[in-house]
Amino acid sequence: MERWNFKGKEEAKKASACTIRSYLNNLNENMNKNDTRNVIPLSHGDPSGFPNFRTSKLSEDALVHALQSGKYNGYPQKSTLLQATRSIAEYLSRDYPYELSPNDVHITAGAKQAIDVLITALAVPGANILLPRPGYPAYEALATFSRLEMRHYDLLPEQDWEVDIDGIEALADDKTVAMVVINPGNPCGNVYKREHLKKIAEAARKLGMLVISDEAYGHLVFGSNPFVPMGVFGEIAPILTIGSISKRWMVPGWRFGWIVICDPNGILQKHGVVESIKNYLNISVVPPMLTLGAITRILVETPEEFYSNTINLLRKAADICYAGLREIPCFTPYKPQGSMFLMAKLNMSPLEGINNDLEFCTRLAREESVVVLPGEALGLKNWVRVTFAVEISTLEDGLCRIKAFCFRNVKQQ
Amino acid sequence: MERWNFKGKEEAKKASACTIRSYLNNLNENMNKNDTRNVIPLSHGDPSGFPNFRTSKLSEDALVHALQSGKYNGYPQKSTLLQATRSIAEYLSRDYPYELSPNDVHITAGAKQAIDVLITALAVPGANILLPRPGYPAYEALATFSRLEMRHYDLLPEQDWEVDIDGIEALADDKTVAMVVINPGNPCGNVYKREHLKKIAEAARKLGMLVISDEAYGHLVFGSNPFVPMGVFGEIAPILTIGSISKRWMVPGWRFGWIVICDPNGILQKHGVVESIKNYLNISVVPPMLTLGAITRILVETPEEFYSNTINLLRKAADICYAGLREIPCFTPYKPQGSMFLMAKLNMSPLEGINNDLEFCTRLAREESVVVLPGEALGLKNWVRVTFAVEISTLEDGLCRIKAFCFRNVKQQ
Repeated sequence: MERWNFKGKEEAKKASACTIRSYLNNLNENMNKNDTRNVIPLSHGDPSGFPNFRTSKLSEDALVHALQSGKYNGYPQKSTLLQATRSIAEYLSRDYPYELSPNDVHITAGAKQAIDVLITALAVPGANILLPRPGYPAYEALATFSRLEMRHYDLLPEQDWEVDIDGIEALADDKTVAMVVINPGNPCGNVYKREHLKKIAEAARKLGMLVISDEAYGHLVFGSNPFVPMGVFGEIAPILTIGSISKRWMVPGWRFGWIVICDPNGILQKHGVVESIKNYLNISVVPPMLTLGAITRILVETPEEFYSNTINLLRKAADICYAGLREIPCFTPYKPQGSMFLMAKLNMSPLEGINNDLEFCTRLAREESVVVLPGEALGLKNWVRVTFAVEISTLEDGLCRIKAFCFRNVKQQ
Repeated sequence: MERWNFKGKEEAKKASACTIRSYLNNLNENMNKNDTRNVIPLSHGDPSGFPNFRTSKLSEDALVHALQSGKYNGYPQKSTLLQATRSIAEYLSRDYPYELSPNDVHITAGAKQAIDVLITALAVPGANILLPRPGYPAYEALATFSRLEMRHYDLLPEQDWEVDIDGIEALADDKTVAMVVINPGNPCGNVYKREHLKKIAEAARKLGMLVISDEAYGHLVFGSNPFVPMGVFGEIAPILTIGSISKRWMVPGWRFGWIVICDPNGILQKHGVVESIKNYLNISVVPPMLTLGAITRILVETPEEFYSNTINLLRKAADICYAGLREIPCFTPYKPQGSMFLMAKLNMSPLEGINNDLEFCTRLAREESVVVLPGEALGLKNWVRVTFAVEISTLEDGLCRIKAFCFRNVKQQ
């Protein structure tokens, strides 16, 4: 009998089970392979493969140019990094009341690595973090893996998904190191007003925590609230901003994002948090060099028309999605103002044999080859997250199939 | 007085201090800014910026083609992943006595992420891992961060840097989950014979551990020993192979590597290790999609001439470096047969005011703008690692400056 000393790791299993990918894999496995129709993916924030959402020619040219120069095949060089961080600082500073320095910018392999770095750097024994419910489960996965205690605060659907600030004060204690705010909202598609962001910063200051502001969907807004970066309130409480080119520029596969220290009072520096972020980046994956070599052109030269075209497309798709779901009795959708998603409450009482969001999504995937994300994955049972950022014809087809599914499964009287 | 709950993380500091980057940053800060000569970097394994070491036109074309197709801007798709893992399995299987399946291949953002994934997945409470001395300090950094106990075994310089197998048996216990073997050797430039690899596998089996075989420099051999992948002995003990396109194809900035499960007996699957690797990958950074879209062409179509040209260049550079250092009394270099490095023992007794490798490297950087890596960074005090993989003229200039440095600093009798 052989003896082997190694074994699996329980935290990895628990962490992986939290991810959107894990839920989607389960749905995909349940799909009917004999359905000859296209699968309609209303489940994730990546429309980059649809012709209408393709990134700008400028971005592609910038990358080709970086590649053909032969200068960006190696590890990042100091001068390249400085040029890139300076461009990002300038790009973001347009919306800030103070100037960001290139030293405030830390480049990551996409927003995902930024989340990894921040959660891991903040996970010290005994600490806890406040996460939104519903939220983006990469935070839950990484906090689980790093054994950082999570406490969930509510987003209030009847108040445009604002943060329940009283709830936060009740949850926090002197071990609460940070709260996460996602704006524009994933999964809710909400966009916070300036005054609300200020209130969040004030609550953070009062409670002694920093704010992680996840702005992966920054500038993707099409309702009445403009996009305001949380870092604007960095003088009230220290803000760590997460950003990326994945969404605004439609290139999630290029793996390029950033962490920005928005803390003009230097509190994070003083308390060792900046050093921990740098140290953890030092032992982590470096971002792809080619994108580093192209980033300045992408940020500076992308034509305004590309951005406005995206916003118009998203607005149109959001309207169609919201209106379409409202017509179906088992959905109560909440109108989105930004990002690529909306949340809809499920009313399953008219449906035969469907008792929760997971059953709903599994049956929908199997019967109609339409994938939407169960709210359970986001901490909100019996809701679903629906992505509207797909080609309009695909969206309309998807809505049509969802409608057919609901009507077909109504209980017989 | 404000109260803030967050603080820095001690493990991040300790882990970062282990890295090569951290040592190189210190050397760079000590450089004489008034020296108008070029800095000569004989300190890291990235010659991709030198014209002679530029990647093949085919690789660049494959990436441009992937980009211009518009199909690879998004998150990795199942079909793209399958195509890539199949190509990697076929590429590697050429050297194996059994066929690897695409399911055995897990794509990572470079070998660095592969190391991260394996160390993190294996770090369960109480476990320990055997690491080579001298070694590649990314392992030490990640084990420190994951609180995985490290035990160091010796590589034997007088036996072509073979593993001290008796030493391993003395170090291991029933909590030893793995040993790391780096072949071709970083930092030693050695290439293990087939029989020695077999002995390592047998020791691993006897001791109940798996072998992590770091083959980042796979196929970059120019001496009498051919490159033999450790996975060839996967029937003796389970092997986790790390590979990448960074070195053989000279594109470390493209961030593309792999973990391959070389375990035809399915032991790792049975003991939950494969699942832990998958789970951790599930919560980690995904690799850049563009390289995924180009990898098949890169592996299949790169002309043989590109590989042989690289080998000829490396052999020539290695010979010049070895001969050059032998002429300098304070060095005892060990002849390399592969990778991009050699190790040289320092004899500092003839030198004035230089008492260890760190002082040697710091003074050399300051006086001659030549950077070599102190052995301390690799676990071997009073040695240095010298990279020969640079343009020949740069290497000759560097050797000339090192010689001048040593002769200038000889003690006055």
